[in-house]
Amino acid sequence: MFQFMTSTRIIFGEGALNSSLSVINQYGYSVLLVTGKSLERATPIIRYLKSQGMRYQHVSIHGEPNITMIEETALAGRKFKPDMVVAIGGGSVLDMGKALAAVIPNQGDVYDYVEVVGRNVPLKSKPLPYIAIPTTASTGSEVTKNAVLRSGQDQVKVSLRSPEMLADVAIVDPTLTYGTDRYLSGRGAMDAFTHLMEAYVCGEPNPLTDMICEEGLRRLAQSMVAGCLQDDHRARSDISFAAMLGGMAISNAKLGAAHGLASALGGKLDAPHSVITARLAPYVMSENIKAALIAGRSDVLSRYTKLAQILTGRVNAHRDDAILWVNMMLEKLSIPTLDTFGVCTTSFELVADDALKTVAIKGNPLPLTKERLRYILEHVCQCGGVCEDGSAIASSKAARILKISVAEDESRYSKS
Amino acid sequence: MFQFMTSTRIIFGEGALNSSLSVINQYGYSVLLVTGKSLERATPIIRYLKSQGMRYQHVSIHGEPNITMIEETALAGRKFKPDMVVAIGGGSVLDMGKALAAVIPNQGDVYDYVEVVGRNVPLKSKPLPYIAIPTTASTGSEVTKNAVLRSGQDQVKVSLRSPEMLADVAIVDPTLTYGTDRYLSGRGAMDAFTHLMEAYVCGEPNPLTDMICEEGLRRLAQSMVAGCLQDDHRARSDISFAAMLGGMAISNAKLGAAHGLASALGGKLDAPHSVITARLAPYVMSENIKAALIAGRSDVLSRYTKLAQILTGRVNAHRDDAILWVNMMLEKLSIPTLDTFGVCTTSFELVADDALKTVAIKGNPLPLTKERLRYILEHVCQCGGVCEDGSAIASSKAARILKISVAEDESRYSKS
Repeated sequence: MFQFMTSTRIIFGEGALNSSLSVINQYGYSVLLVTGKSLERATPIIRYLKSQGMRYQHVSIHGEPNITMIEETALAGRKFKPDMVVAIGGGSVLDMGKALAAVIPNQGDVYDYVEVVGRNVPLKSKPLPYIAIPTTASTGSEVTKNAVLRSGQDQVKVSLRSPEMLADVAIVDPTLTYGTDRYLSGRGAMDAFTHLMEAYVCGEPNPLTDMICEEGLRRLAQSMVAGCLQDDHRARSDISFAAMLGGMAISNAKLGAAHGLASALGGKLDAPHSVITARLAPYVMSENIKAALIAGRSDVLSRYTKLAQILTGRVNAHRDDAILWVNMMLEKLSIPTLDTFGVCTTSFELVADDALKTVAIKGNPLPLTKERLRYILEHVCQCGGVCEDGSAIASSKAARILKISVAEDESRYSKS
Repeated sequence: MFQFMTSTRIIFGEGALNSSLSVINQYGYSVLLVTGKSLERATPIIRYLKSQGMRYQHVSIHGEPNITMIEETALAGRKFKPDMVVAIGGGSVLDMGKALAAVIPNQGDVYDYVEVVGRNVPLKSKPLPYIAIPTTASTGSEVTKNAVLRSGQDQVKVSLRSPEMLADVAIVDPTLTYGTDRYLSGRGAMDAFTHLMEAYVCGEPNPLTDMICEEGLRRLAQSMVAGCLQDDHRARSDISFAAMLGGMAISNAKLGAAHGLASALGGKLDAPHSVITARLAPYVMSENIKAALIAGRSDVLSRYTKLAQILTGRVNAHRDDAILWVNMMLEKLSIPTLDTFGVCTTSFELVADDALKTVAIKGNPLPLTKERLRYILEHVCQCGGVCEDGSAIASSKAARILKISVAEDESRYSKS
């Protein structure tokens, strides 16, 4: 048995933003408008609100939302009494808007409602209507039911999560991603990939998420390079679509160890979530395959084979080709390695412990021991094993020189 | 640009009904329970409502809902003041429940709100929460936003339609379809097929409906015979899933001439909607292909080729193989021909005129002239052309004897 939920209404396509602004009128007269630091892409919305004589208050956020930020903004928001929240921006902006829509009608401590560090109490009142408009192709936050928040005190990332937090309307207009720089595009696309990949191989897939993941992975494999590196518009549209599918997938299937480790690392490392999960992905895939071989889990192995077939487009692809494909893509898209962000400065012991407590890791296709998680962390930092004796220095030139070719490293293990 | 909407929450799987009854509690304390003539499958719901001390009123319908029925039941329903509507049954029961949920909070004439014969005014008040539980694998009504109603006066079928009419929860439990007789199973599965097929080749597909149609058609092709004729449980589950996908597809893409003609015929003929659309399907496909050849619409032709590939599972299938597949399936499932129901007694002129006014026909991959629609009607009755001079007698033995093999008939035209 499975459950499937998604945003009630999705409007997708080139020009979707300008041609569907009138949906705002369906939800009232006053808008809390959430954007990133630049207002540029929100201009058509502001112009529209003015033309309709609607009230609006503007909230601009910089960086990832944290719980204090939400509490303070919600206080101001309650005084303004918005009928709805409209957010336009990247994943952080969309998560901020989603969290505000949920928190504004629910007085009290935000910690009451968050997972892991909080009491995880269900929302008392229904969130405000929420319209989500992504300007990046990455998180799929426009169709997910959780907002990822940084918890300053505990150095972890936590989720505010409720089926009622699904956006009422998701407007996905790929033209908003045209011209995005290569780094932002690449890590966005890899974020979408990691969502689709972990949801596809996870322990609780369902026929709807399988269909969604296969379509999303196929489109990503075809379009990632042309979209991210050559700004090809048709490819951009494919990536926006795949990113949205990724959001649907993770909201309705599970995730895995890459997301579990990333959420444990996320609060401790000043690296984008997308880069952390993307760099962890091949190591997690390799450990999962090894663990599945030992456990005789042919169901898990055949999922990786299918994944490899979709990514490479070859019917005779071997499951290890999926790992090679990811490594190739990480190189092509110049996704930085985690030593750049000082992964060696974290305690692998502590990170592995924290990861084992996450919701995400429970979705992993099969349980990974703490030792396997440590192994992943030791290798993902790519300092050549120096960190294993505790003497590694993050982001050092030495670490880069010692870097073992990922492909070589993999071949040592995956054939055993 | 496209828009996609579906039921907010879908619960699918063997045993889904018994294990998700508690969702009812989320919507209040009093239930208007809509069933078909037998209460048997509603027993777990009634037992649950009693165990929770909830109020309920039971409405049992027999046959297809008509507007008078809705008006009378809504009057009684308003006095009971239900918090929600729960419907368990086939497509007619689910449409009845959906219409009641919409009409109860909206006083006034039902004709105000219906398409074609009515004023098609948007609903003033939000419908009551609605939980839809199909016991057949056919219409996909559990995820569509319209209710098909018979309009007694005008002898047509019309729709009450609103995005707000999407069920709040769709509970699809394939075990409810186990043991269904071959005729009901076969025409249900063909109904799902016609939805998926017309949505797939329609004039306004979108990437989400394409993905949904391809998955649904693939599963149907694999499972129709085993599910409908051998009551194979895994195949039954596939058909339930495909039927739900069919509902999603038609709610978010368009339909075509088979549904346009069927809704014009539906009010005049005492035949199940599913049988009418299924029997029309191969003729409509053939006329569309011919019209596309003349108009040089290679986009339409390649859709039919893709359809043929999915249905036959052969990469080198020709578009005409799709028509042959449908004819083969109609025979295998013993779907009755339309002469059985007296299609010859209707005025083809009038039916073609009425069909051209429907919403469905506007979705056809390309426009069909009135002459082509007449041609389809003349041939679908399979009386061997007798009806062309107006002297046909419906359901006669003579008509059956004169019946031209569908495959032969097709081969005459599809190769031209």
